[in-house]
Amino acid sequence: MAPTPSTSPRRLLPLSLGLFQAALLLFFTLFVTYDEPSTQAEDANSMANRLYSIFPFFQDIQVMLVVGLGLLLTFLPRYGLSVLTHNFLLLNFSTQWALLLQGLLHRLHHGQVHLGLHNILTAEFAAVTVLISTGAILGRTSPCQLLAMATCEVPIYLTSEWAIVTHLGVLDVGGTITIHVFSCYFGLGVAKALFRAAQQPGHPKETPTPRSDLMSLVGMLILWVFWPSFVAVLCQPGDAQHRAILNTLLAMSASAVTTVVASSLMERDGKLSPGHLQNGSLAGGVAIGAVADMAMAPGAALALGSLSAMICLLGFRFLTPLLTRKLSLQDQCGIHNLHGLPGILGAAASAVAILVVPDVPAGYHFSPIGGNATEGVVMGRFGGRGAGWQALCQAMGLVLAVGGSLLAGLLTGAALRMPCLALPPQRLCFDDSLYFKVQEEAESTRMGGTSEEGALAMKEQV
Amino acid sequence: MAPTPSTSPRRLLPLSLGLFQAALLLFFTLFVTYDEPSTQAEDANSMANRLYSIFPFFQDIQVMLVVGLGLLLTFLPRYGLSVLTHNFLLLNFSTQWALLLQGLLHRLHHGQVHLGLHNILTAEFAAVTVLISTGAILGRTSPCQLLAMATCEVPIYLTSEWAIVTHLGVLDVGGTITIHVFSCYFGLGVAKALFRAAQQPGHPKETPTPRSDLMSLVGMLILWVFWPSFVAVLCQPGDAQHRAILNTLLAMSASAVTTVVASSLMERDGKLSPGHLQNGSLAGGVAIGAVADMAMAPGAALALGSLSAMICLLGFRFLTPLLTRKLSLQDQCGIHNLHGLPGILGAAASAVAILVVPDVPAGYHFSPIGGNATEGVVMGRFGGRGAGWQALCQAMGLVLAVGGSLLAGLLTGAALRMPCLALPPQRLCFDDSLYFKVQEEAESTRMGGTSEEGALAMKEQV
Amino acid sequence: MAPTPSTSPRRLLPLSLGLFQAALLLFFTLFVTYDEPSTQAEDANSMANRLYSIFPFFQDIQVMLVVGLGLLLTFLPRYGLSVLTHNFLLLNFSTQWALLLQGLLHRLHHGQVHLGLHNILTAEFAAVTVLISTGAILGRTSPCQLLAMATCEVPIYLTSEWAIVTHLGVLDVGGTITIHVFSCYFGLGVAKALFRAAQQPGHPKETPTPRSDLMSLVGMLILWVFWPSFVAVLCQPGDAQHRAILNTLLAMSASAVTTVVASSLMERDGKLSPGHLQNGSLAGGVAIGAVADMAMAPGAALALGSLSAMICLLGFRFLTPLLTRKLSLQDQCGIHNLHGLPGILGAAASAVAILVVPDVPAGYHFSPIGGNATEGVVMGRFGGRGAGWQALCQAMGLVLAVGGSLLAGLLTGAALRMPCLALPPQRLCFDDSLYFKVQEEAESTRMGGTSEEGALAMKEQV
Repeated sequence: MAPTPSTSPRRLLPLSLGLFQAALLLFFTLFVTYDEPSTQAEDANSMANRLYSIFPFFQDIQVMLVVGLGLLLTFLPRYGLSVLTHNFLLLNFSTQWALLLQGLLHRLHHGQVHLGLHNILTAEFAAVTVLISTGAILGRTSPCQLLAMATCEVPIYLTSEWAIVTHLGVLDVGGTITIHVFSCYFGLGVAKALFRAAQQPGHPKETPTPRSDLMSLVGMLILWVFWPSFVAVLCQPGDAQHRAILNTLLAMSASAVTTVVASSLMERDGKLSPGHLQNGSLAGGVAIGAVADMAMAPGAALALGSLSAMICLLGFRFLTPLLTRKLSLQDQCGIHNLHGLPGILGAAASAVAILVVPDVPAGYHFSPIGGNATEGVVMGRFGGRGAGWQALCQAMGLVLAVGGSLLAGLLTGAALRMPCLALPPQRLCFDDSLYFKVQEEAESTRMGGTSEEGALAMKEQV
Repeated sequence: MAPTPSTSPRRLLPLSLGLFQAALLLFFTLFVTYDEPSTQAEDANSMANRLYSIFPFFQDIQVMLVVGLGLLLTFLPRYGLSVLTHNFLLLNFSTQWALLLQGLLHRLHHGQVHLGLHNILTAEFAAVTVLISTGAILGRTSPCQLLAMATCEVPIYLTSEWAIVTHLGVLDVGGTITIHVFSCYFGLGVAKALFRAAQQPGHPKETPTPRSDLMSLVGMLILWVFWPSFVAVLCQPGDAQHRAILNTLLAMSASAVTTVVASSLMERDGKLSPGHLQNGSLAGGVAIGAVADMAMAPGAALALGSLSAMICLLGFRFLTPLLTRKLSLQDQCGIHNLHGLPGILGAAASAVAILVVPDVPAGYHFSPIGGNATEGVVMGRFGGRGAGWQALCQAMGLVLAVGGSLLAGLLTGAALRMPCLALPPQRLCFDDSLYFKVQEEAESTRMGGTSEEGALAMKEQV
Repeated sequence: MAPTPSTSPRRLLPLSLGLFQAALLLFFTLFVTYDEPSTQAEDANSMANRLYSIFPFFQDIQVMLVVGLGLLLTFLPRYGLSVLTHNFLLLNFSTQWALLLQGLLHRLHHGQVHLGLHNILTAEFAAVTVLISTGAILGRTSPCQLLAMATCEVPIYLTSEWAIVTHLGVLDVGGTITIHVFSCYFGLGVAKALFRAAQQPGHPKETPTPRSDLMSLVGMLILWVFWPSFVAVLCQPGDAQHRAILNTLLAMSASAVTTVVASSLMERDGKLSPGHLQNGSLAGGVAIGAVADMAMAPGAALALGSLSAMICLLGFRFLTPLLTRKLSLQDQCGIHNLHGLPGILGAAASAVAILVVPDVPAGYHFSPIGGNATEGVVMGRFGGRGAGWQALCQAMGLVLAVGGSLLAGLLTGAALRMPCLALPPQRLCFDDSLYFKVQEEAESTRMGGTSEEGALAMKEQV
């Protein structure tokens, strides 16, 4: 018989989620309208052009988050349905939650809230942090816990993003510091506080099969292809955006080649590890975010891409086992290697670039929900600051992102231990059958296991 | 030994399809040219801009129909090759057939036919109805029958679309009534007339495996991501199109969350059903089509998305078993729950919105093949009608779509019983080997090697 | 125990690749900058528009090459990880290598090199030839050999492209002659010289399973959807680009339908062959490239698509066995049928079209790396040549592409026999475990399925 979660939490999820949906609906009905329709032909034309300039980028990002990231996580061979579904649910819930929070905030200050595609985009960026943090605790947590984590993380992210970008004036067009570093240390904090030292090293169902590795590789390729859209979508149109795309392309191409080199050198027999490819090839995209639109040399993008891939793989080889051993820190997908280390590298690179590079593009801010997207303030060079001061701000932003998120993550993780959130027992982890009605006939031969394995799985579930 | 279809129909398919292709070629060679080249620089520039404003939407829709829909239907574990191929073939055949019919019609009235991307797009919409209707009879029919159905359905759709949109003036920018409702009841009519009461309930090969469910889920995600392009492609550029995209995003996001809530509440043990996710998450996109470009509140889009997902899941739970039991109606993919019920809900919503909403965007019609795509007549508010009258028209359009398509479907289904179309015997259904040359060697180890082979492989590697 | 490649080459790959990456980095750092930033608001706007007009096409092409082509090649059931990874690595390496060569060339003549998205696009076209040629030797070669082949092929392609397009003035907007024909005969030359006559006919691991055929079919569908972007990206914006998209859509639609017709007629029992579908449906896209932007009738595009699919399937049926028997020529993926025969047909069609069609669009050339992308010279009708002379040039271009690439391929193939490049032994071919660290536990049950399940599947099918 397939296992069932205990009684109370199996209703907690749908009920709380349903309540949230009703609250959102109420708020939107009462206070939110669309951007005012433009009244003149000229306006209509420029509105159309503005839409055409952002919509293809937006769609690329949607593919990344929904399809690419989902598939990347299917390396757990018996957990594919759960991974795709949880990723999809968290994206939608967190985006809605961020829209609600941004709307509430704007409502307090300005009254009626106007909604545009830019607002959905910035809300989706908040959701990205949740999806990344999830990587640290993937497969060992219940959907209730994931939603509770999202509920905490989104407001913390919005605060952190306000402090780092708006207050400190950190330049970070691709979200290296505000998204990747933040979400990584938040996720690690959650993992540490949630699991403490109780984890035993390897679960039989977490070993990828060649087939699940293949699906995950396809997910990586989809992310790799569309990453430039993610980095460049909020850039100032024109040269800065062009440069951001080129820098990202170069960095990711260097990452891809360097990953093969480094992975092959790391093993005695020169073979490649699928896990290295799935992560290292994307490291350049993480690192380039903070400097992508700066007028630095293309060579610097290549160097950054190469370095970040190396750091990522070295992290997998040396740091992850160390953290597991010394700190009993569980990092299921290795987000510290993909988002943490390359993110820190990228932040450092941004400080260096600011000191070295002759000119840096003026910042371009999309206003939060309800504001006018075109009014983005074009600042002068660092908004009038000196380069040294701006570089210092980048460093302070990094410190704030690491420290703040780690602390917040630890607190959140402790809260996730509440029994009502239904931490699944160790032996039922990494298995779709805990959360999905999978056909009993199919069960025994699912994913093509041997009958022996099937029998074992059966026993285990009794 | 793999089964073979009987002699006569195995030649009928290629011969009739080949004849059709030759006829199309002849017609195109004689009567069709491309849009006249623009002669001035200004024109060339505006032509380029027009292309850039539609091509990304067009590509998104192509991905939906060819990849997304194809994968969604691969939930039948032994029928993947057939599903992808039949979907692909039907899309191409039906698009060509619609182009030919539209061209013939235009030829009769205006002489030379000019072809543009808009014509291909509207022809593809005709093909979408065929792809949806196929869902009702998937796996139990031969390719000959599917092509015969397409041959009937395309002209009926074109007539129905003319009657509903051009004649009645129904507003339906996303095809809720003209495409989804129409194709659903057409497909159900076909299924009823074709299979009558002879179907036994469950076929051993129609049960999805976790792996085929995973592929299907990926297909759903691809459809989910690109759906806004499908709804908004024919909207008036500018505010209306922006609004259509936002409304679709909100509706589908609400659908996704509500599906998880409802699916979890429906099962005693709180587990999710993959089938619910594959369908419910898309229900919002079906329902929003008729109101997407109207100036209604964002909250209404959320509400519509939530409601349609609920209705879809309730349909799976209560209505489908009822229809099967009482009417012996077979609906293989549950198209009534995904396209029928949410479509009716959307049509009703459009009538309500027209009565309530202060202003409705002027309609924007792409002219049929051969016309000038830019001449789209911008009507005033409902083309000068009162709101009450327009709401009545929406209702009449819905009735016409349901009644007309059901009748036409029943007749078509009866015609599909012709022996020459080779209805496959029950025991050979849902199996690729009926239509595909799958390698005999591979056959024995399909879906993976035997342990013997594994042992051999091991030995070989030592 | 999993097999290991011999000692020396397992270090050759990472070391040489690492050296290349360092050299590229050095060159970029010293000599390459981005396009000069535009200084005026008007310029910035036009820069943004130029970016929006090319970036969606560019992304489509990236999806084709990274995801679509990768999946298409996964028909080898135990070689999926290798195929995806080698394809990805070769694309990145070859693009970088082409950028380096183009940059060096430009550096010699003009000093500082300016980089833009167009340069990356043209460099990627060079990489495409490598990816296609690889199809001839897929699964039987080591990554070292593939990289060595890429190292030779890219400069040869750049020379050939210069001779054919710049020098001879051949019109070939979609790369039919310069990319498809060239890379096909280059690949066949490599295969002939590398393997000589030693190949035994069938390897047990090269037979596709239904599941690997399914993945490959998905890859084909992705390529099919995005192909119009590949053909049209370098067309003159406006009518010519619109026409190129329409011609490609029509040709590929005709190919898809014709493939089903022809594949079904070729087999005695009327069943379809997955291999036919995976190749024939794309043949129209190969053939249309040389004529896509010409002002020919839409009917001609349909005819060309149909014919090329037929030729492709006839090639699989009759020519491939003949070549194997008479010339001992190994063509693993049948690139001669997909790229060679339709390419020659397309080249011939371009000569005919030039003689028959009233007017041909002025050529539009993107300048090589460092040049100014907008300066593309708009020539008059054939740059002032007569139609007869231009048609002759097309023929000469074809002859040059076939002859030159075959010769160069033979030489390259001979060079690939060097022992240090580690040709894998026959019995270890087509298996991921030679190059990937796949988990030993997973190994025994990889691709799943117990022998019991296999036996059941057999019984059921009798």
